[in-house]
Amino acid sequence: MDERLKRQLDFILELDKEKNVFRQTHLSGHGRRENDAEHAWHMAIMAYLLQEYSNERVDVAKVMLMCLIHDVVEIDAGDTYAYDREGLATQKAREEAAKERVYSLLPDDQKQTLSAIFDEFEADETPEAHFAHTMDNLQPLLLNNSNGGSDWAEHDVNAEQVYGRQRKSRLGSERLYELTDCILKENIAKGSLKK
Amino acid sequence: MDERLKRQLDFILELDKEKNVFRQTHLSGHGRRENDAEHAWHMAIMAYLLQEYSNERVDVAKVMLMCLIHDVVEIDAGDTYAYDREGLATQKAREEAAKERVYSLLPDDQKQTLSAIFDEFEADETPEAHFAHTMDNLQPLLLNNSNGGSDWAEHDVNAEQVYGRQRKSRLGSERLYELTDCILKENIAKGSLKK
Repeated sequence: MDERLKRQLDFILELDKEKNVFRQTHLSGHGRRENDAEHAWHMAIMAYLLQEYSNERVDVAKVMLMCLIHDVVEIDAGDTYAYDREGLATQKAREEAAKERVYSLLPDDQKQTLSAIFDEFEADETPEAHFAHTMDNLQPLLLNNSNGGSDWAEHDVNAEQVYGRQRKSRLGSERLYELTDCILKENIAKGSLKK
Repeated sequence: MDERLKRQLDFILELDKEKNVFRQTHLSGHGRRENDAEHAWHMAIMAYLLQEYSNERVDVAKVMLMCLIHDVVEIDAGDTYAYDREGLATQKAREEAAKERVYSLLPDDQKQTLSAIFDEFEADETPEAHFAHTMDNLQPLLLNNSNGGSDWAEHDVNAEQVYGRQRKSRLGSERLYELTDCILKENIAKGSLKK
């Protein structure tokens, strides 16, 4: 087998490990915890279906690819819960090291392409990155809301913390941020998200 | 909330169930069985990375979307194992009914778009459908090969049956079919796939 294809296959097999990185979000119907691969798959389809709500016109294929690969670094770095202060302090360094190791499995040109898309997501300065972040926030919110907000209760998270994270959704979509705000207000009113 | 967004969110939440449809393939490292959402995620990234091996030039964004949604019907119809004769006999009818129910959750225009992409995959007549099928065959083969072919042993599947299915990969990619043939021959030689 030629070296290029071998490297591509090594990376593809490495990706499989993302299915064993579990997040704090539970599947709808009070299911088990969701893993990174499932989360990324869900986000990519959402990006396609909800693209009309993006504030700015986006290259939706790029957003979808960004969604699909944005958590690859967690194969080494693990998932950092959105409200885990200690984890968040070291997240950047852990993910940079992981990015270098995992993407280096690929042929150089594809390493450059995928690293650039990951960096664009992280920098969050383009319409595509903004919209991918909106999906990254909305996807677990929809699952958690379907479960009566039990993920917030489990981690003793309050409305201020949730708004702190979810406000960034506004950069990608005013309309979907309105939806988010509406969901959060309902949960606060019901007592499933504490003030 | 307006009716259009409500329908989109209903469909998105329905998609979550695909994470509970388990396949016969096991994750690498002799892991648990893989589910449809993970399989689709893996296929979509593979399609992007391996597009250079497609026999014909493809719209890779369309292939990726096709990969992401090709198993949505299994939410109702369940996964039909590639070598399950009885299941295969009723698969088409079960999946048609599922397609109608699940895609009807969406606004009409998006129902039409996604149904058309699913139908294109099923008909397997375009370069995009051919290449998506190549990914659908290659992804579980890579996992199973990494586990020493244990999925074949578990189901008492022989080389003739595997070739019967894998030969279709050739329509999408001669190069990846060569790879497949090489993997199968190695497994036959090692005795992990019986003749």
